[in-house]
Amino acid sequence: MTKKMHLAAFITAGPGRPGGWRLPDSVPGWLDASYYQNMARTLEDGRFDLAFFADIVSVPDRFGGSTDSQLRYGALGSLRVDPLPVIASMAAVTRHLGLAATVSTTYAQPFTVARSFASLDHLSGGRAAWNIVTSFQESEARNFNLDEQFDRSTRYERADEFLEVAGKLWDSWDDDALVLDVEQPLFADPDKVHRVDHKGRYFSVQGPLNVPRPPQGYPVLIQAGASSKGKDFAARWSDVIFCSHASKESAQSFYTEIKERAATFGRDPEEIKILPSITPVVGPTTARAKELADEIFELVPPIGGLSTLAYHLDVDLSTFPLDERLPEVEVPGVAGHYHEVREITEREGLTLRQLGKQYGGRYEGNFIGTADEVADGLQDWFEDGAADGFTLQVPYQPGGFETFTRQVVPRLQKRGIFRTEYEGSTLRENLGLTRPASGEWQRRSGAQG
Amino acid sequence: MTKKMHLAAFITAGPGRPGGWRLPDSVPGWLDASYYQNMARTLEDGRFDLAFFADIVSVPDRFGGSTDSQLRYGALGSLRVDPLPVIASMAAVTRHLGLAATVSTTYAQPFTVARSFASLDHLSGGRAAWNIVTSFQESEARNFNLDEQFDRSTRYERADEFLEVAGKLWDSWDDDALVLDVEQPLFADPDKVHRVDHKGRYFSVQGPLNVPRPPQGYPVLIQAGASSKGKDFAARWSDVIFCSHASKESAQSFYTEIKERAATFGRDPEEIKILPSITPVVGPTTARAKELADEIFELVPPIGGLSTLAYHLDVDLSTFPLDERLPEVEVPGVAGHYHEVREITEREGLTLRQLGKQYGGRYEGNFIGTADEVADGLQDWFEDGAADGFTLQVPYQPGGFETFTRQVVPRLQKRGIFRTEYEGSTLRENLGLTRPASGEWQRRSGAQG
Ligand SMILES: Cc1cc2nc3c(=O)[nH]c(=O)nc-3n(C[C@H](O)[C@H](O)[C@H](O)COP(=O)(O)O)c2cc1C
Ligand SMILES: Cc1cc2nc3c(=O)[nH]c(=O)nc-3n(C[C@H](O)[C@H](O)[C@H](O)COP(=O)(O)O)c2cc1C
Repeated sequence: MTKKMHLAAFITAGPGRPGGWRLPDSVPGWLDASYYQNMARTLEDGRFDLAFFADIVSVPDRFGGSTDSQLRYGALGSLRVDPLPVIASMAAVTRHLGLAATVSTTYAQPFTVARSFASLDHLSGGRAAWNIVTSFQESEARNFNLDEQFDRSTRYERADEFLEVAGKLWDSWDDDALVLDVEQPLFADPDKVHRVDHKGRYFSVQGPLNVPRPPQGYPVLIQAGASSKGKDFAARWSDVIFCSHASKESAQSFYTEIKERAATFGRDPEEIKILPSITPVVGPTTARAKELADEIFELVPPIGGLSTLAYHLDVDLSTFPLDERLPEVEVPGVAGHYHEVREITEREGLTLRQLGKQYGGRYEGNFIGTADEVADGLQDWFEDGAADGFTLQVPYQPGGFETFTRQVVPRLQKRGIFRTEYEGSTLRENLGLTRPASGEWQRRSGAQG
Repeated sequence: MTKKMHLAAFITAGPGRPGGWRLPDSVPGWLDASYYQNMARTLEDGRFDLAFFADIVSVPDRFGGSTDSQLRYGALGSLRVDPLPVIASMAAVTRHLGLAATVSTTYAQPFTVARSFASLDHLSGGRAAWNIVTSFQESEARNFNLDEQFDRSTRYERADEFLEVAGKLWDSWDDDALVLDVEQPLFADPDKVHRVDHKGRYFSVQGPLNVPRPPQGYPVLIQAGASSKGKDFAARWSDVIFCSHASKESAQSFYTEIKERAATFGRDPEEIKILPSITPVVGPTTARAKELADEIFELVPPIGGLSTLAYHLDVDLSTFPLDERLPEVEVPGVAGHYHEVREITEREGLTLRQLGKQYGGRYEGNFIGTADEVADGLQDWFEDGAADGFTLQVPYQPGGFETFTRQVVPRLQKRGIFRTEYEGSTLRENLGLTRPASGEWQRRSGAQG
């Protein structure tokens, strides 16, 4: 059997791209459950592994200290529906599709989060995934009683302890604790449900959880840390890693590095799936695809894109001249996005204004062409050690997912590198990942890279 | 037009009653979405106003300092799925039914909760409700980094500020802030989205929310406080009040008191709906209903009921002799339940063991009989100033809801005291409640009783 790639869909519970919502084909259904449910059906028809929702807990104000540019241009942080009820409503209309929501360890409590995902995992029959983030915006800290955010190393230290507690809570019911013996009666065996009695630096949690062990053992864990601490965290805890690269070469070196790091943490590198982000534009001919990409590009207001880039880098880009290149800067935010942006700025000689447009309408990996050309590009990355599959972003929702599913997916299937039927019933099974035994958190949190 | 009663269904996202799960007709589907979705369909067929989920964030260990009695007997706190994804999945299969989840102000943050309910309100088309609790178990505090819980007055002070912040966040987008002008472009009008800049004793929150104002203005707010502070809180903030009474007389006096209190807080008493809890048992004949009630009663293990009563009263009942009456005790927990239990203990001369059985299989209001007799009882309470409607509990799920909907609802409809069609499209409209104007929180939080 040839190795198969995995596909995730990166859906925004809001307008997402500052040009996307302006397209005639874009549907402004961000506040309607049916909008997400229809995309879920499309993705399940296309045999996607999972749908993924990013998140942020503020309207970012990193551009000029104001939320205006986000709101005016419908940029990524302008409007974001809570992803948890969204994925619950998508689970209701699908049977196989995995469902991932982002929740920050910095502004939540482990009991709450462990319980939400355990509940979602049960309710969806083993399809829940948690994208673990530590957050990086001051505006988020200021919505949660802080004047400024904790520094990165504190955030990751807290995240490590958070995961340890979550693991203990998911394991607080043995797999066979629920007995349901009507006669005795014995609902659950008290000897198989354990207090966790965690007392650490950031959390003290007695347990047990009031939800039995999730069908997947733990929900699928996803991470996108880009700093050295972030990559360690991901190598230790993640089942799936998201990343964003401007070229195959940078994707390859990230891929190699993460797989090696996972091995040093005592994990089988096959048990970590790396799914770089792509935004293909598909057309009937190469020329038509390029035209389409240009049309979409035209609709991106440069300040809308720069506003989102400012929030991703956590750098106030409003202070730099628009018609010059962005100089090298200290980036407290997403290092990965900064590498990507530097690579593109150098390669294409962009001014800041052009970069804003580029970032707002960006096409990671530059997969623009016919369905066959896009499939070629994906196959090349996949077979050349750059990816275990991809996280599909689309220039506009929901149409972009329909096009990809109808045109690119069948070509990947024909080449034998993507499934035609789901392999299993849980997301872990479809991803080819082992169900963690009870106590697995212990091995992971003790591991040293 | 005759005044119509309102009906809520009290569903437990777990076994609920320590006898209920042992009944042959009980379906152990607490971990499946379809279990809740089927109930949602039944309730919508029966034109219920809303489905309501209670909650607790621990497995209580108030009986003998151990969770064993809860787990062994499948008592109320043994297993509780997170109600938020549950109501999201019920929203997916219904169009009119209101959906209420309990979230504690003591262990959550206002940004998170305001956003969840705003999101649910949008996704469900205006059907979300929040049952506001302040929590009262030490075991809950110990899952959230505390050695012991805050005292009641601190909890309510925090709850008041929590609601103030939530109100500010729901109002942080003006009703017409989302513009979606593709040409300009103008996604949202920055002048109509406001920071909240709240700085208080318990919270500091910058805002704005990243979700537009909910369709209902605020989600429907529900409360069940029973202490004097709790009743003040409810009179100030609630649209709907839950309570639990052993007789019509005590329901009447609570009803009168709350409506008066609401008036002193400057609110129209008609804008607060009081829905006492009932657990009817319906049979083809009176005798058969009584038999059925007895059969169900037989299945209740006394310790299972006492374990839940211990948690509700927050009193370790394992230290009292089982074959004597419960003496008068100091009750840090739910005063309302204590009044109810005292009333029954005196009236029926129960020992603690008998009380445990009674509490575990309890039938508030004692509506046991034919469908006509039950309808008579409800009509009497409703027309005699004891209730604006009811919160239906059932001795076993999901069957109890089907029986009530098929047999009692048509009789209430025939008498003209219950709707045959939904009046509006949002929960507020069906409850006959005004949509709060932006800024309403200000009036409520400033009001003095
Ligand atoms: C593809 C991708 C998606 C991300 N999605 C989110 C997100 O939804 N929410 C968030 O707060 N951070 C998100 N991040 C940021 C990361 O979680 C992480 O904080 C960031 O990469 C900085 O990593 P570092 O903290 O290790 O430097 C994302 C990063 C990447 C590369
Ligand atoms: C019918 C009813 C339902 C309740 N449901 C919950 C619940 O789901 N979760 C919870 O923590 N407390 C619940 N409570 C407790 C109340 O929220 C409140 O804490 C309790 O009545 C004590 O009130 P007090 O704090 O004003 O004394 C309920 C109380 C009643 C009477």
